Amino acid sequence: MKARVTVMLKNGVLDPQGEAIRHALGSLGFSGVTGVRQGKVIELDLEATDPAAAEAEVGRMCETLLANTVIERWSVELI
Amino acid sequence: MKARVTVMLKNGVLDPQGEAIRHALGSLGFSGVTGVRQGKVIELDLEATDPAAAEAEVGRMCETLLANTVIERWSVELI
Repeated sequence: MKARVTVMLKNGVLDPQGEAIRHALGSLGFSGVTGVRQGKVIELDLEATDPAAAEAEVGRMCETLLANTVIERWSVELI
Repeated sequence: MKARVTVMLKNGVLDPQGEAIRHALGSLGFSGVTGVRQGKVIELDLEATDPAAAEAEVGRMCETLLANTVIERWSVELI
C-alpha cells in the first residue's frame, strides 16, 4: 500500500521559498500568478494492508517526524 | 483559480532525502515502511479563469522553472 503525505506551511506563516518562486515566475513573464506556497510531498511504501490502520500509522509518522506541527499542516492520502 | 504542482524525482534517480526519512522512521519504531520518496508541492494562485489555458500555462512554468525535467517529473492538478 502507498501513502502520499503533503506538508504545507500553515496560513499566516511566512513562506520565503514560495515568494522567491513567485518573483522568478514574474521575471520569466508569467504575470498571472498572485500567490505561491511551497511544501513537501512524501510518498511512503507501506507493508500494512488495512487502509484505516495504515492511515492512522502515517498520521503518527507526521506528528512525530514528517511535519513540524507548530508551523505546518499535513494531510495523508492513500494511493 | 488554484493549481497544485507536484514535482517528484524520476524512478531510478537516487533520493537521499527519502532514504534519510526511511532510516529515521525505522529508528523511531515505524518498521513497516519499505520505501520513501520525497518531492515538492507548489500551490499557485492564478488570475486565469479558463481551466485548459491555466493548465497549459502551469505546464510551461514547470518546464521552465519549477522542475528539472532531466531528473524530475511533474504533474498539475487544478483545485
